[in-house]
Amino acid sequence: MNTQSYPSRLLENAVSEFSTLPGIGQKTALRLVLHLLRQPEGDVSRFTQTLTRLRGEIKQCRHCHNLSDTEICAICADPARDHGTVCVVENIRDVMSIENTMQFRGVYHVLGGVISPMDGIGPADLTIQDLETKAASGDVREIILALSTTMEGDTTNFYIYRKIKDFPISITALARGLAVGDELEYTDQVTLGRSILNRTPFEESLGKN
Amino acid sequence: MNTQSYPSRLLENAVSEFSTLPGIGQKTALRLVLHLLRQPEGDVSRFTQTLTRLRGEIKQCRHCHNLSDTEICAICADPARDHGTVCVVENIRDVMSIENTMQFRGVYHVLGGVISPMDGIGPADLTIQDLETKAASGDVREIILALSTTMEGDTTNFYIYRKIKDFPISITALARGLAVGDELEYTDQVTLGRSILNRTPFEESLGKN
Repeated sequence: MNTQSYPSRLLENAVSEFSTLPGIGQKTALRLVLHLLRQPEGDVSRFTQTLTRLRGEIKQCRHCHNLSDTEICAICADPARDHGTVCVVENIRDVMSIENTMQFRGVYHVLGGVISPMDGIGPADLTIQDLETKAASGDVREIILALSTTMEGDTTNFYIYRKIKDFPISITALARGLAVGDELEYTDQVTLGRSILNRTPFEESLGKN
Repeated sequence: MNTQSYPSRLLENAVSEFSTLPGIGQKTALRLVLHLLRQPEGDVSRFTQTLTRLRGEIKQCRHCHNLSDTEICAICADPARDHGTVCVVENIRDVMSIENTMQFRGVYHVLGGVISPMDGIGPADLTIQDLETKAASGDVREIILALSTTMEGDTTNFYIYRKIKDFPISITALARGLAVGDELEYTDQVTLGRSILNRTPFEESLGKN
């Protein structure tokens, strides 16, 4: 779409702001902006105020680096959680995914990304130093490495492993294998191979369903 | 995704505001909000200010009802355009589409929708009364009905036609037929049938490419 044909500079500016969002092209941006224009003015000001407050007031939890409204997030502040078990994840979406399983009662450590030389992200850009400090404190019994099973995730796992392996901590990783509902025929070779190597006693799998 | 697992109320509010936009679900909304959080604070305030200004300052052109920064839009204010030829369209996106063809030098009349009893939109919700006033003024030579070729568009075309047919104005509609690049084999019967009935002298089609 030719940008010169916008009937209004205000409209064009709003569309170009929306187009900076990931996955939003100019046509979608125009649709969103025209939608906002059809809403009552109060709705739009609530929309912008919510964003402004979010950007200005949101904090990073001092313990786990998760996003939080308070200095310490609700998970880290919960005395019922096991603070000796730390699950290392890439970002806050992963925290939300694991919380939704309701299978984990420990606490988290959000790295803020994975080591990715291609994207210019090195260990210093992540919260790995802070994780080392935690490991050295003696308060942690287990660190669960729960990064994505990509090359960058594996690299980061290994980097962290090297940094903390000398502390008296058990270091574990998420189980890899068939997803629940997977058909063998359509499972990739590497996953299938691993799930054969790491086969578990059948009675264990019974208890988990 | 379970909304209870949001680590922050501020985040949750922002996500739910984004989710009100058309075509944006909760997962996409979260992605957009986290993207905004990674931007410098100045970028976010520019984003919200642009939206606030848009909602507060944008106007509807008094002549054609197109969106505009000024009381009269740039098209209606342009003395080089033919103000005797009025193209009736549904919305401002249609104005932009026709402007992009650079084939039309007249002015527009934006209806603001089409008659659609299913959606509760009747003639009074559109700018049809204003179009009648224009037709009665004697300043208009031709009115081009350029609505979508849907049932609602056809209904609206016919409604407008009945309202203005007694004025000394030529009333035209967009040509219907094969799209440029269409293959006969895959063209629907109605379109193909019309394009046979409305066949044009071959020499005319030569000049238009």
